[in-house]
Amino acid sequence: MASIGSTMMLGRESKSLATLRIKSKPFSPPPPGGVSLLQANLRAPSMKGSQTTLNTTVEKQLKLLHDPRDSVHDMVADSFFLGKVEKDSRIFSQNFTIRSYDMGPNHTATVETLMNLLQETALNHLRCMGLLKEGFGSTPEMSARNLIWVLSKVHVAVDHYPTWSDEVRVETWIIPSRRNSLAIEWIISDSWTGQTLTRASSMFVMMNKETRKLSKWPEAVKREIEPQYIDRPPLLDKDSSRLPKLDHTKMEYVRTGLTPRWNDLDINQHVNNVKYVAALLESVPIPFLESHELSAFTVEYRRECAMDDVVQSLTSFCHETIDQCFHLLRSECGHVVARGRTKWRPKQKKNFKA
Amino acid sequence: MASIGSTMMLGRESKSLATLRIKSKPFSPPPPGGVSLLQANLRAPSMKGSQTTLNTTVEKQLKLLHDPRDSVHDMVADSFFLGKVEKDSRIFSQNFTIRSYDMGPNHTATVETLMNLLQETALNHLRCMGLLKEGFGSTPEMSARNLIWVLSKVHVAVDHYPTWSDEVRVETWIIPSRRNSLAIEWIISDSWTGQTLTRASSMFVMMNKETRKLSKWPEAVKREIEPQYIDRPPLLDKDSSRLPKLDHTKMEYVRTGLTPRWNDLDINQHVNNVKYVAALLESVPIPFLESHELSAFTVEYRRECAMDDVVQSLTSFCHETIDQCFHLLRSECGHVVARGRTKWRPKQKKNFKA
Repeated sequence: MASIGSTMMLGRESKSLATLRIKSKPFSPPPPGGVSLLQANLRAPSMKGSQTTLNTTVEKQLKLLHDPRDSVHDMVADSFFLGKVEKDSRIFSQNFTIRSYDMGPNHTATVETLMNLLQETALNHLRCMGLLKEGFGSTPEMSARNLIWVLSKVHVAVDHYPTWSDEVRVETWIIPSRRNSLAIEWIISDSWTGQTLTRASSMFVMMNKETRKLSKWPEAVKREIEPQYIDRPPLLDKDSSRLPKLDHTKMEYVRTGLTPRWNDLDINQHVNNVKYVAALLESVPIPFLESHELSAFTVEYRRECAMDDVVQSLTSFCHETIDQCFHLLRSECGHVVARGRTKWRPKQKKNFKA
Repeated sequence: MASIGSTMMLGRESKSLATLRIKSKPFSPPPPGGVSLLQANLRAPSMKGSQTTLNTTVEKQLKLLHDPRDSVHDMVADSFFLGKVEKDSRIFSQNFTIRSYDMGPNHTATVETLMNLLQETALNHLRCMGLLKEGFGSTPEMSARNLIWVLSKVHVAVDHYPTWSDEVRVETWIIPSRRNSLAIEWIISDSWTGQTLTRASSMFVMMNKETRKLSKWPEAVKREIEPQYIDRPPLLDKDSSRLPKLDHTKMEYVRTGLTPRWNDLDINQHVNNVKYVAALLESVPIPFLESHELSAFTVEYRRECAMDDVVQSLTSFCHETIDQCFHLLRSECGHVVARGRTKWRPKQKKNFKA
């Protein structure tokens, strides 16, 4: 089974799970003077050149972030992993330098690299809040009940890809979400210019580690998580992340016999969620990969994938527009492991700074 | 073809290439006062618990590093990528924090992660020396002649694997080498305790980017590189890195039909050298991978591997000792792509800091 770290992925929430009532914490009043790094960064992120085809609510989002009530956050620097968290722990930011090994054939950071940064910052955020008990994300109350987070959906829009030596800032926070799910959002921006590079959003549900069944949120876990909510509209338009039903018999491109590599596994011996995206793209024709880059993608995780699983990757181009594909990852015995939609744009040659 | 970044890998140096006469730069006299970070780190690295089976010259190496003639280096901090280079540019060091996504199923950084750190620091060293013109490592004089580095051999001994949140320091330098080859060495140590975690050594040769033929070193390139040499004995015992001839018909474990993934490619559209190691390990039986961890490995790169190549991974256990394997990576048409030897020890459960 895939995982964000050790937290397992699963496709669909059980309909029997009760709807959660979310109490979001109001913004704290602004401390006097000063502008936080976060705010300085988000004041005027350039949207120039944004090529994503998603309809987003980013302007609204940015307006909220500029709200003077929330204008100043004293940042607590954690020199150990260079992450910063506001005093109220609700927004976490961390800077990263893109390394040579983060780059792929497009001369830019790969999608895998961007997703790794999302995972790392979400976990460090939990750690800074004192909510990382064990594994990759279980809170103390979850750990006491043998519960883990399972990633059910990820939605990413990449406006611009960073390249070697670029410094990026990743900001993450938790927004209230309906039903028994946790919604985490991220903005990756250029550390120097503040330009937004990537926006992302993920949904997690809770699962019992032993029974592998979905779980309602225990009250004690709600009490841990809810104070961290920031009541904002979603960063990415939900409609654009909805996936149609896909008929595997009608998909145009198929790659069979795909098996995980040893290093695709995480500490729970299951394929990490980031590797699913690579597997979904295995069936995209190479000439298309050579001439295009991903501008956005949505992945729904449906089943765990272990070392001995053999899967098929299937891709179809959207009939209406060439720049959109649908994808399926199926086990050889017919189970849907993951499904997704990707949006593409013509590749632009990128040169890193020598 | 595999690559360290875009520099291509190749297996064997042409025997017709003339032997290089190496002039190593003498140690510069010690500036008054102070102890460098490098020296402080290397003064008393704990070798306790070292389990590698390689016969190494590390003690000799450390003694040389402690040489009072070389006792103090004023470090020039480069805040951009957190690397440090001595004033004479001959030793470069850079700190890294192990991220959640650097870890594999053993709860530790993967071998792939360690090799990525070697690549990143070697390139940043060249950059700090002003010798990075383009691609991944071509010097200005090489670039003017369309020459690139090709990795021919890598030899790594892992005494201890770091885990999530561990801070490691990677130090790298160039030693003189016979024939037309460049020898780079690395020590990865625990940033806090100074304990040596990993020692590594790589050999590069020069190749014409267009003709794909090996090249002698032009005099102008020698003049660029030779002042950077540090005249030390090799960090790892050369004998232990020699590989026997391997007969593919007698190898015990075979995995066929392996193809590169899109994200295995680097900016030159060839499989990155780090991915070869993963491919060599594809044929190691899973129960053995589950119970053992790599303590050392040697890989000889013989051929480039591109996106449309289909390869086989073959493994044999050494008859004398269970903890040693030999590996072959062959194209479906019979060419040897890479060969290697791995040494193993029983896995010890590692726990990262939550």
